[in-house]
Amino acid sequence: MSLSSLSVALPVVAEPSSLALRFQEVRNRTATLCAPLLPEDTVVQPMLDVSPPKWHLAHVTWFWETFLLKEYLPGYSVYHPDYAFLFNSYYNSLGSRVNRADRGTISRPALADVYAYRAHIDEHMPQLLALADTLPPAFHEVFELGLQHEQQHQELLATDIKYILSTSPLAPAYQPAPAAPARTPAPPAAWLPVPGGISRIGYEGTGFCFDNELNPHEVLTTDFEIQNRLVTNSEYQEFIAAGGYQDFRYWLGEGWELVQSMGWEAPLYWVEKQGQWHRFTHHGLQSVHPAAPVTHISFYEAQAYATWAGARLLTEQEWEVAARHFQATSTAGTFLESNLLDPQPLPPDADPTHCHQLLGDAWEWTYSAYHPYPGYNRAPGALGEYNGKFMVNQLVLRGGSCATPASHIRLTYRNFFHADKRWQFTGIRLAR
Amino acid sequence: MSLSSLSVALPVVAEPSSLALRFQEVRNRTATLCAPLLPEDTVVQPMLDVSPPKWHLAHVTWFWETFLLKEYLPGYSVYHPDYAFLFNSYYNSLGSRVNRADRGTISRPALADVYAYRAHIDEHMPQLLALADTLPPAFHEVFELGLQHEQQHQELLATDIKYILSTSPLAPAYQPAPAAPARTPAPPAAWLPVPGGISRIGYEGTGFCFDNELNPHEVLTTDFEIQNRLVTNSEYQEFIAAGGYQDFRYWLGEGWELVQSMGWEAPLYWVEKQGQWHRFTHHGLQSVHPAAPVTHISFYEAQAYATWAGARLLTEQEWEVAARHFQATSTAGTFLESNLLDPQPLPPDADPTHCHQLLGDAWEWTYSAYHPYPGYNRAPGALGEYNGKFMVNQLVLRGGSCATPASHIRLTYRNFFHADKRWQFTGIRLAR
Amino acid sequence: MSLSSLSVALPVVAEPSSLALRFQEVRNRTATLCAPLLPEDTVVQPMLDVSPPKWHLAHVTWFWETFLLKEYLPGYSVYHPDYAFLFNSYYNSLGSRVNRADRGTISRPALADVYAYRAHIDEHMPQLLALADTLPPAFHEVFELGLQHEQQHQELLATDIKYILSTSPLAPAYQPAPAAPARTPAPPAAWLPVPGGISRIGYEGTGFCFDNELNPHEVLTTDFEIQNRLVTNSEYQEFIAAGGYQDFRYWLGEGWELVQSMGWEAPLYWVEKQGQWHRFTHHGLQSVHPAAPVTHISFYEAQAYATWAGARLLTEQEWEVAARHFQATSTAGTFLESNLLDPQPLPPDADPTHCHQLLGDAWEWTYSAYHPYPGYNRAPGALGEYNGKFMVNQLVLRGGSCATPASHIRLTYRNFFHADKRWQFTGIRLAR
Amino acid sequence: MSLSSLSVALPVVAEPSSLALRFQEVRNRTATLCAPLLPEDTVVQPMLDVSPPKWHLAHVTWFWETFLLKEYLPGYSVYHPDYAFLFNSYYNSLGSRVNRADRGTISRPALADVYAYRAHIDEHMPQLLALADTLPPAFHEVFELGLQHEQQHQELLATDIKYILSTSPLAPAYQPAPAAPARTPAPPAAWLPVPGGISRIGYEGTGFCFDNELNPHEVLTTDFEIQNRLVTNSEYQEFIAAGGYQDFRYWLGEGWELVQSMGWEAPLYWVEKQGQWHRFTHHGLQSVHPAAPVTHISFYEAQAYATWAGARLLTEQEWEVAARHFQATSTAGTFLESNLLDPQPLPPDADPTHCHQLLGDAWEWTYSAYHPYPGYNRAPGALGEYNGKFMVNQLVLRGGSCATPASHIRLTYRNFFHADKRWQFTGIRLAR
Repeated sequence: MSLSSLSVALPVVAEPSSLALRFQEVRNRTATLCAPLLPEDTVVQPMLDVSPPKWHLAHVTWFWETFLLKEYLPGYSVYHPDYAFLFNSYYNSLGSRVNRADRGTISRPALADVYAYRAHIDEHMPQLLALADTLPPAFHEVFELGLQHEQQHQELLATDIKYILSTSPLAPAYQPAPAAPARTPAPPAAWLPVPGGISRIGYEGTGFCFDNELNPHEVLTTDFEIQNRLVTNSEYQEFIAAGGYQDFRYWLGEGWELVQSMGWEAPLYWVEKQGQWHRFTHHGLQSVHPAAPVTHISFYEAQAYATWAGARLLTEQEWEVAARHFQATSTAGTFLESNLLDPQPLPPDADPTHCHQLLGDAWEWTYSAYHPYPGYNRAPGALGEYNGKFMVNQLVLRGGSCATPASHIRLTYRNFFHADKRWQFTGIRLAR
Repeated sequence: MSLSSLSVALPVVAEPSSLALRFQEVRNRTATLCAPLLPEDTVVQPMLDVSPPKWHLAHVTWFWETFLLKEYLPGYSVYHPDYAFLFNSYYNSLGSRVNRADRGTISRPALADVYAYRAHIDEHMPQLLALADTLPPAFHEVFELGLQHEQQHQELLATDIKYILSTSPLAPAYQPAPAAPARTPAPPAAWLPVPGGISRIGYEGTGFCFDNELNPHEVLTTDFEIQNRLVTNSEYQEFIAAGGYQDFRYWLGEGWELVQSMGWEAPLYWVEKQGQWHRFTHHGLQSVHPAAPVTHISFYEAQAYATWAGARLLTEQEWEVAARHFQATSTAGTFLESNLLDPQPLPPDADPTHCHQLLGDAWEWTYSAYHPYPGYNRAPGALGEYNGKFMVNQLVLRGGSCATPASHIRLTYRNFFHADKRWQFTGIRLAR
Repeated sequence: MSLSSLSVALPVVAEPSSLALRFQEVRNRTATLCAPLLPEDTVVQPMLDVSPPKWHLAHVTWFWETFLLKEYLPGYSVYHPDYAFLFNSYYNSLGSRVNRADRGTISRPALADVYAYRAHIDEHMPQLLALADTLPPAFHEVFELGLQHEQQHQELLATDIKYILSTSPLAPAYQPAPAAPARTPAPPAAWLPVPGGISRIGYEGTGFCFDNELNPHEVLTTDFEIQNRLVTNSEYQEFIAAGGYQDFRYWLGEGWELVQSMGWEAPLYWVEKQGQWHRFTHHGLQSVHPAAPVTHISFYEAQAYATWAGARLLTEQEWEVAARHFQATSTAGTFLESNLLDPQPLPPDADPTHCHQLLGDAWEWTYSAYHPYPGYNRAPGALGEYNGKFMVNQLVLRGGSCATPASHIRLTYRNFFHADKRWQFTGIRLAR
Repeated sequence: MSLSSLSVALPVVAEPSSLALRFQEVRNRTATLCAPLLPEDTVVQPMLDVSPPKWHLAHVTWFWETFLLKEYLPGYSVYHPDYAFLFNSYYNSLGSRVNRADRGTISRPALADVYAYRAHIDEHMPQLLALADTLPPAFHEVFELGLQHEQQHQELLATDIKYILSTSPLAPAYQPAPAAPARTPAPPAAWLPVPGGISRIGYEGTGFCFDNELNPHEVLTTDFEIQNRLVTNSEYQEFIAAGGYQDFRYWLGEGWELVQSMGWEAPLYWVEKQGQWHRFTHHGLQSVHPAAPVTHISFYEAQAYATWAGARLLTEQEWEVAARHFQATSTAGTFLESNLLDPQPLPPDADPTHCHQLLGDAWEWTYSAYHPYPGYNRAPGALGEYNGKFMVNQLVLRGGSCATPASHIRLTYRNFFHADKRWQFTGIRLAR
């Protein structure tokens, strides 16, 4: 699958039958993702960034109910009067809600009740979609947003489930391990030149994109070089072995304080056992594959690694310029649909002149703040809170990961996290 | 049931068959208590004092395994190598363990796995009990302690479950409400004189008691008067209505700071709806019964109420002296076995010359620190950590509650909590 | 000086000339204590328990102004409208005030302004005292309280100054070191028997005492033995060397958590240099005198030491019974007036049948909670907040220290601190 | 004074006599700034961002000693062995140091000792400067950096002193108020167009600049408009009156949480008295001048104001492009040398076609993260920690303020603070 096919946007207005099909497909994937979980797994919140899977299941459902059924389905009445309080995430426009820190302290409604809520919405949405022809463009936009929103929560479900299971000393597996990829070494990294000049970035298609990708505009970059693949576990182990976590010179100040106060010595999920690095995965504890991309690192670690390696991270402008430059020849990486839930090593014979893993496998930390594009304006109403209010103190990540649905990602997609976050599949691509 | 029958102590050495029966009975009650719970309810920890029911179920089981099966059953091997880390409560002698604050963040082992663990221990304990005749006195003491320990966790289960369910806005009921007691007013409180002088307190029987009750000794009290019943909800509402929560003069300094920082305006679980006080119970939200004893108050509230009422709390010496004085005529209150899980109003025709509710219904805060009795010594080994290490910064409570097993309580029983705790069935008895 | 002379109480009503003289004497001592300080030393608050000396100087002055001049001196008007907000300590009755934690963040009024405030009050008080004959008993009581209050702050000044200077790596001396006491060993500790029975405790004289000493009453004690001197540094070093700080079995649970989280390995102010213990004193860093009483330890350390030594702490009832028992023959220890500001070693030839250091040198932690005596009632008005509201979660200390004015201490005196406090001159006396 | 004269850079190598003169001038200004302070004012730290003036005085002195005297003056030995620990700010390369949060808890060395330290360094530096001809370029670079460093601390001194004095309810004045500017209204704001295209930013002169300004490079901007003056107090009061602090729609999410948790309702230092806004200044409490630029606002407030006003903030690229565009005609604002220590209103007849207040008066928050310029590399050694390690989670501010030395600021100067900081003279310039 080439990148260009991935970046083909979905049409905003489709025939009703197709809308219903797409709705069903997205909803099914969410349920499938949660199927291996016990009810116990679905209520806990072992850290603030993680939400209980039961909450995700209900929240995405509340989104459909609040923004579509309540608005557009004649005669629809709200399923339960307390669910808005329980399952609103962060919309100030929509009233008070459970503190984020308390999501894991509430056992009721039961998981079965949340599935009943899902079923209720899944019954009513087709009724609404049958009327789609008669509904205004705003309906179609929000319907599309609902699909994308639920896909975003699929990625969060995958990573939150991983974190939840990791906190037990039993190291339980979410699913059996697939056949392990051969322990062949990664092909040596190669530097690929990207010519400077004026380029356009931002979404220009006719399909869906988030408002933060809009206002395509010109950017100016100088000549630079990009590595043709992600940094591997084996390369990152060299950084660890060289004392990278003990030498403040590689680190940003706030990162260094964190390393010391948290006692970080390796990526999240890494455990040394009998002198060998293992990592907790969706398949339990596994030995680290040397050729697979390193993941579960903070921006601070990505930046420190790059400094140690005598290189640097890309800006998001450079990333997008490079991605567009190499789009034709690059092959896609691993996505959620593969059900592998782990970034995969590049084949040893991968073409060294191509730029690999641009989409999929691991989100790539950029050294760009998540700020508005020129001309950005928040939409009015609750959905104006979707993206805009987060535009400070976070960094942009690009490219999607092995937990991102393939139909969700684009070259223009701007993900964002605080510099200290590690529970997503976050990795490193070097530039110079 | 008279108090004296309650205070008859259990024989330390019984025939094996009887040991097995008692073991089974206690274990069954724990399981029965948890039967109405969903798996979701058994993993959450909405505040630090509360432990997840799944943890309780496993911890009491680990206690039998660690202190009896491992020690005395030939050939017994530990069920799971990680369970000591997961289910040790606070025994430093027995190694590292999950932080108390993290008990509600761990979903595995599953509830079903914990029940399997229980079944495993429940199968092996009879094998051990069959050998009881051949085992040393230490075995019999720890066996008895194991029963009492599990009974203590039954009370904690009852109160932790209540707290867990209370945090949901759905106000779910643990069990259906029994027929509501008639809304008759409580009989007026009467003051009963207790003559001063030298009395003995502390456990002197031949049955089981905790080490903190030992070393019976003489105490000197002056003449005092005690109220013949617990303070009622209706009386406490007068304190609220009189602005008791807004006037620092009634409060100890640290209590007043707490009232202000926490915004306390009524006991825990009380909610005002349409001008009427309701409270969350094991049967969901119920209107406050005016004649029932007030519960779920901190020591600070008990002391402030007493000051406002122109009275005071008892010391634990006075409490025990009075309890022994009135023991013959007093009737017992409500215990766990009633399955009512709520303190009950006194009948309007209760004899005003008797001292009611001394055992059962609500723990009575005393104005005595939980300190060692004269001559107290901690036992060597892990079980020496059972009581002694808590003997500072806590206050003694006496008398048991509606969540205490009747066979667990005694007139000499010393319960203890920090002054700010409210999630137990704690109440007020006045003296002057 | 025998203890009995120390415990002779001051007459409540004295001739005016004497009142003025006593006022002047107490005020002068406060100023003398602060004379060696730089302005810089008088504003900082390196921990919550410590108040800046400038604040002490102003607060005791505000006390005279608020409770006496404002009340009784005709035509007196308040010196500065903002000083009540700045220098009220904890009287809720008297309105809002600077948070305790912020006392060290406010540089103005300047130290010179505070001395001007003192001078203003020191000029007006004699005018008021000239009218003493015409004033009601309440005036005389509060005047006496004012003296005692300022004496309490003298002790706090001495200990707060020590803490403040200790935080600088320069280890500055408050005053030059006196001639060091000879390094003779302490006489061996001896156990003195105290016969049990009914005794009276509490203040019964006609002089001043605090309300918390009132309501003298009978207590019942059993026979016990008390050590004839305080535990020495040398004895305490054995506890350290034996691994006392590393063995949880000697510690109360909350103490053990503190030892670990704070990394305590010795008393406050102790520093190991070139294999020898030193301690910060009012004379800078000094080597530890083996025969001097150990001080600057928490209740947790006192209790752990006693447990390690196979002994125990006294209750406050036992302490007072013993002190009265040995009063006739005991010699007093070191007080503030000596200006030594350090507990002194007992002479090697001290009579082993006498009970030494009962008053002075070091406050003795008792294993008694600071609770009200039977019949205790808080006074109405602001002065009712003086003692009563602190009667929970603290422990009683007895006997005064080398920083206590000799005229301030009594055998019935009840001091109180939380179990974790170490910055006072607190020490250990063993019982069994 | 035109902007272009301000941006003329200082020559790196000057004759020795001139070096000594410049050294003396900068040192004198620091001392002059602190002259009005009492010793009490120089030790407190009322919030984490503020350092005690005594610490500033010593730290800048330590900088000269550490980086110049120790390195280059033959035979120089360190003044005091503990001062590196006490007065190192954040250089990990130079060992351990006092925690930033504890700077205000240490009273010694005394202020007089710090002045003696200053005098010692001020005596030795001319000896070193006399050798300047013989010293390598690195010496000259660090000497220049030392001057700039001390100037930066002059600005911090001015703002820290303001904060320190503000915490007293006495609202003490640092210096008497100058004649108040006439209460004429500000000229109406006008929008000035800035043509888009490729421009160069970054320092290109031959004088001193910080490493974060280096690597001048081309940037691409679109056409935009900039307001010709800073937002005034009067305009900001309209935002307050319109409920700007109560409406989440104008705010970034993290800003809104802060507004609520801190209870912000106006800029720092603003107090409403008798229905009129006042603000604490270096001259005590003063009524708000409607035409003066609003200052002491966080980035969150700047961004919320801009959103409310239907405009936006500039990026730092846009700011520099505009500043260069208007450089020839713009007049400079108020700097530290004026000793006014308050931003001044623009004259009512200011030319509406000029861009005013670009340098001086108030730092202008940009909506740009403080990230490295392309090709940025940290210098090796301790001075490499000067700028680079802060390049995340902060925002760039441009233009200097009334507390910035005029000789310190440049059009290319990049200042940086976290989005929540308010104690600097920070203001708003709008763009669209």
